[in-house]
Amino acid sequence: MKKLITSPDSVVADALQGMALAHPRSLRVDLDNRVVLRAEPKAEGRVALVSGGGSGHEPLHAGFVGRGMLDAACAGEVFTSPVPDQMQAAAEAVDRGAGVLFIVKNYTGDVMNFDMAAELADATGDVTVRQVVTNDDVAVEDSTYTAGRRGVAGTLLVEKIAGAAAEEGRSLDEVAEIAERVNASARSMGIALSGVTVPGSEKPSFTLADDEVEIGIGIHGEPGRRREKAATADVIAERLLEPILAELPGEGPVLLLVNGMGATPLLELYVMAKEASRVLEDRGVEVSRHLVGNYVTSLDMAGCSLTLLRLDDELTRLWDAPVSTPALRWDDADEKE
Amino acid sequence: MKKLITSPDSVVADALQGMALAHPRSLRVDLDNRVVLRAEPKAEGRVALVSGGGSGHEPLHAGFVGRGMLDAACAGEVFTSPVPDQMQAAAEAVDRGAGVLFIVKNYTGDVMNFDMAAELADATGDVTVRQVVTNDDVAVEDSTYTAGRRGVAGTLLVEKIAGAAAEEGRSLDEVAEIAERVNASARSMGIALSGVTVPGSEKPSFTLADDEVEIGIGIHGEPGRRREKAATADVIAERLLEPILAELPGEGPVLLLVNGMGATPLLELYVMAKEASRVLEDRGVEVSRHLVGNYVTSLDMAGCSLTLLRLDDELTRLWDAPVSTPALRWDDADEKE
Repeated sequence: MKKLITSPDSVVADALQGMALAHPRSLRVDLDNRVVLRAEPKAEGRVALVSGGGSGHEPLHAGFVGRGMLDAACAGEVFTSPVPDQMQAAAEAVDRGAGVLFIVKNYTGDVMNFDMAAELADATGDVTVRQVVTNDDVAVEDSTYTAGRRGVAGTLLVEKIAGAAAEEGRSLDEVAEIAERVNASARSMGIALSGVTVPGSEKPSFTLADDEVEIGIGIHGEPGRRREKAATADVIAERLLEPILAELPGEGPVLLLVNGMGATPLLELYVMAKEASRVLEDRGVEVSRHLVGNYVTSLDMAGCSLTLLRLDDELTRLWDAPVSTPALRWDDADEKE
Repeated sequence: MKKLITSPDSVVADALQGMALAHPRSLRVDLDNRVVLRAEPKAEGRVALVSGGGSGHEPLHAGFVGRGMLDAACAGEVFTSPVPDQMQAAAEAVDRGAGVLFIVKNYTGDVMNFDMAAELADATGDVTVRQVVTNDDVAVEDSTYTAGRRGVAGTLLVEKIAGAAAEEGRSLDEVAEIAERVNASARSMGIALSGVTVPGSEKPSFTLADDEVEIGIGIHGEPGRRREKAATADVIAERLLEPILAELPGEGPVLLLVNGMGATPLLELYVMAKEASRVLEDRGVEVSRHLVGNYVTSLDMAGCSLTLLRLDDELTRLWDAPVSTPALRWDDADEKE
């Protein structure tokens, strides 16, 4: 399988070096621990946010390190959880005396390792850690890497909104409560037009026929709900939104995230944004914020996911707050979209 | 061929509607003319910048409409030049009395249509228009759609730097001179790991074997210089940079743009950034600015291009100036990378 890599063994280290070169003024990359940090640590007394997970989902998580979002991100090998030592090092590096929130996608290895890191940081570094586990994917109840629902693109919304709350100076309990609330109010579902090939593998995780798509896929090439005949974007929008809406709690306006899986052109993501908005309008759901792009990817998988987040005034205000990271960036004067 | 579209006939209109939904506060989309404009026009007396071209290269050009960059972008059908009426409408909409610069990629249809539009805008709208034609691709001298060298990823650098000059209040002649200087100082070369499939086609423009890459490709599935055995990223960086350096004028530091062609993961683009930086360091070329991401794409083509721009103090200052567009965004306080 062709890839722009030098070796499957060095791909994560090489990419982190490239990231350090690309963002010398805003990020600091600790290559020994494979932790990406803000170049300028946040103020004393503020809660810090740490996330991380297997590589291959870029820009998640390291692309979201910066003012208004994460303080640090830990990079595991491709599709493999980072180890507790990395998370502990990150927590101790970013703690400003107000504690650290770990944002963890619900995969067995990640949950176990972040748990262990929280204990280590508390025991050896005297860092108070709280955790939120994201599980926004409505597609399957358990999967190859998960007990319970998977954490997918909704994780980005948790990182943004909890990051804004931390920047405001809220307490660790308050930031954790907001993160939990975002996760509980977000639902996602994805579709693949192709499988995904891990560096070093000769073959994709699964193969789809020329006229076939897989509905309900995860972000590691795990199986989805079912295979179907390929359909047009308007039909796909309907099929993804129906199970999302069935499980979305509450009432009122929503944020719509149209997320590319890595190999799907932006042109198609904008088409999906139009079609998803139309479906929601037909059902009387007001979309008050949009985000469209490649944010939580699965290497070279073609496809997309849709996420809805039920907004209230506080979540909307925190979403609109300034953010300055490599992959997500706006300021007070900017669009709040 | 599977795509997230509703119909090949409506794909551009659908995507523009999606773009309007995604950026309601910063962009205004004229669906009749297929022109994307800033929601807030720039100040009277400032030079305006208009670009455009075939769709399928997103975020180029509409993703670069905003403060510090373009005033309007005209969207043609996929891989097809917009028509003169669109460009004329854009010029008349954005002229603030100081004239309009057209930024045109060097393809026969684009050059002809922008020429005609310049005449129409002058004759019927009394708008003074100047044009710069970009031709940064060193791969081939002529190609399917071009007499002379093709305009590729360097176009984004022209749009950014000329946009900053216009925002400063420079005259039309000065902005045009700076745009010409950027184009003359930029050189690009690309590699494909796969062909590209236009919506409505059953087949990609070309097919590569599992162990084959094409060096020197354009952004429309045009042929490149030659096919080769697939190689590792360090070797590919060398092969792309060698012909670029051979034709890059001047001395001193450079900006390195690592641009994804659409279906290549960000992880791999960061690996390419590391490897390209290493090659340049070995040759004593200082890289003082980096940009890494999917900016000038070719639908679902896998691969990347490298661009070098020779910087001087003025070009560096204009590159660093604040910019606020959907796809490129930084402010004074941000990294200047």
